[in-house]
Amino acid sequence: MRLFQVETPCLVLEKGKLQRNIERMHSKVARLGAGLRPHLKTAKCVEVARMALAIQSGGITVSTLKEAEYFLDNGITDLLYAVGIAPVKLDHVADLIRRGAELTIILDSLDQAKAAAQRAQMHGITLPVLIEIDSDGHRSGVKPNDILLIEIGRMLHHSQGLQLKGVLTHAGDSYGCKTIDEIQRIAAQEADAAFRCAEGLRHAGLPCPTVSVGSTPTATYATNYAGITEVRAGVYMFSDLKMAGLNVCNVEDLALSVAASVIGHQRQKGWVITDAGWMALSSDRGTASQTIDQGYGVVCDIEGRPYPDLIVEGVYQEHGIIARRPGLGKELEWHNFPIGSTVRILPNHACATGAMHDRYYVVNGTTEVMAIWHRINGY
Amino acid sequence: MRLFQVETPCLVLEKGKLQRNIERMHSKVARLGAGLRPHLKTAKCVEVARMALAIQSGGITVSTLKEAEYFLDNGITDLLYAVGIAPVKLDHVADLIRRGAELTIILDSLDQAKAAAQRAQMHGITLPVLIEIDSDGHRSGVKPNDILLIEIGRMLHHSQGLQLKGVLTHAGDSYGCKTIDEIQRIAAQEADAAFRCAEGLRHAGLPCPTVSVGSTPTATYATNYAGITEVRAGVYMFSDLKMAGLNVCNVEDLALSVAASVIGHQRQKGWVITDAGWMALSSDRGTASQTIDQGYGVVCDIEGRPYPDLIVEGVYQEHGIIARRPGLGKELEWHNFPIGSTVRILPNHACATGAMHDRYYVVNGTTEVMAIWHRINGY
Repeated sequence: MRLFQVETPCLVLEKGKLQRNIERMHSKVARLGAGLRPHLKTAKCVEVARMALAIQSGGITVSTLKEAEYFLDNGITDLLYAVGIAPVKLDHVADLIRRGAELTIILDSLDQAKAAAQRAQMHGITLPVLIEIDSDGHRSGVKPNDILLIEIGRMLHHSQGLQLKGVLTHAGDSYGCKTIDEIQRIAAQEADAAFRCAEGLRHAGLPCPTVSVGSTPTATYATNYAGITEVRAGVYMFSDLKMAGLNVCNVEDLALSVAASVIGHQRQKGWVITDAGWMALSSDRGTASQTIDQGYGVVCDIEGRPYPDLIVEGVYQEHGIIARRPGLGKELEWHNFPIGSTVRILPNHACATGAMHDRYYVVNGTTEVMAIWHRINGY
Repeated sequence: MRLFQVETPCLVLEKGKLQRNIERMHSKVARLGAGLRPHLKTAKCVEVARMALAIQSGGITVSTLKEAEYFLDNGITDLLYAVGIAPVKLDHVADLIRRGAELTIILDSLDQAKAAAQRAQMHGITLPVLIEIDSDGHRSGVKPNDILLIEIGRMLHHSQGLQLKGVLTHAGDSYGCKTIDEIQRIAAQEADAAFRCAEGLRHAGLPCPTVSVGSTPTATYATNYAGITEVRAGVYMFSDLKMAGLNVCNVEDLALSVAASVIGHQRQKGWVITDAGWMALSSDRGTASQTIDQGYGVVCDIEGRPYPDLIVEGVYQEHGIIARRPGLGKELEWHNFPIGSTVRILPNHACATGAMHDRYYVVNGTTEVMAIWHRINGY
């Protein structure tokens, strides 16, 4: 099967680029002496997880219990669920642990720790827990200097059914950086906060075997992981225009795109209409705040070569509008876009675009579809 | 089962509100003498389709062939696929017709008509076709005064395997209106364009039994459907904050929400952290351009009563940040949001939020879950 025979819109995954992205991040993190715990929130696909685990030992990170269950069902047992635990999910967590998962949860409050202890005791399991640290003020976590860290640590360590496993932080602020220097500063701050909290727990006589940090930008530009045991990153596998805008990768490294069919022309307006709207691309406008606003994505030919002047300017549920970048006028090379022809769109945000589809059409530098890989979504 | 026992995030659907929304739109369109062809692109759920069809005869509108196939499998045969046809989908269309679907396609070019004729002849089927009209310049379609309309009409009428069924338009510009007067003007323009094109085809000796218009805003405020045979609308069933901002409904009419768990507090910042991020709510910011910017959604208690001062201010993949509206300060009533408690979020855009989930937890004014209804997504 060739790409132009596949019903559009659909996800296209370049296997060679994926492999190179996986190898690059693995080498980078290994060079700094830490382990990589790949985050599967972007791919949500066991074939991709296996590629990421083929060059290393260790487990993965997930963003939902549905992912945890899916990967467990596919034989991956070492799982970190890296979203602060909601008590209503603890029975599901216990069920996965009874079924063989080495599943770690995270939390940042005494109330969560109490609920976790209560459910772990009720189910007769031991639940490993990381304390979430807020290293950059962007979202969740205990502040590094807050005494609450030690209080939670003590409760986890002394509660039957719980195992204090360490600390975790995520430097989400790195996504908004303007320069590589800024990413490096946030990477240092992320590692420093996690390390200081680990030391704080140890000085209080508490165990802290795991010190977990990460985001794709900080993992790419970190220069020192002394005291850090594991690094979590996910979007590096596929990468996207947001990451390219951060100089975390080149546009040529992007492994994921959406194939779309041309279904109309509005010549006076300079528009090519495709069948890839927000339902296929997502509404993510993550590059809007960057130096180059990529609209809803960069337009490529069917083999994945970008048209430098073309972006998806607008989206409706099942329609995308391709136009030249602002200021370049309305004169498209119409012969490149006959009705029924296929284009590919590079996404702003691979996690968001991937989530709109249930499978990948896997290619490797040509339009030949080598495989179809399924992925999961939702809850 | 009660809502607070369901794993979050999840979709909650208020059946009574859904029923009232369905009845209101049905009565409105019937009063003007047209038929309603409900658009299932929002709900993508057969139970909802059956409710919409229970009070009337006639078929439905769909936005993907996957929807067409799903509804056909569930016994609904009269289907309008209201996105300009891509030639690569014609084999799938033919397959659905052979399996019993009365499936109509739409197009706005001679190239699509040629491709459709060729595939219909190859498959030995008769394919009903509507010509898409551009009544407001917002997206696709033939301009009402363009001679192309008659050329396409002639080709459809004279091609073996095709049946010219009429014209269709969608006044998408209505979503950007600031006043009800403006919506009424666009509704009149929509109906007028469709009617004039139908008359144009008839004057050229071509048949035009179907004259199809619609969008939820224009269907709500139209005053004259003379010459219009069917009205398409979809989001009215669930409605959303975008529609409320257009004065197309009240916030109390919103039938869809997302249940989320409180998983953290950042008290200095005035933030309640939940487990409903963009993966649960979508990234849709459709109210950003309206008079009241609702962030990523309006926060309600577990029974669906809105907190007037609280919105979802920010989202990450699996985290939502609840805060007071801009300018109101950081003093939340924290006792309403203990760790583990459930809130509900009213969405900006029901089509986009629905698409992030595979089922509805159906309630009716209480927290008792009456049913779980499945929905489809993707392609």
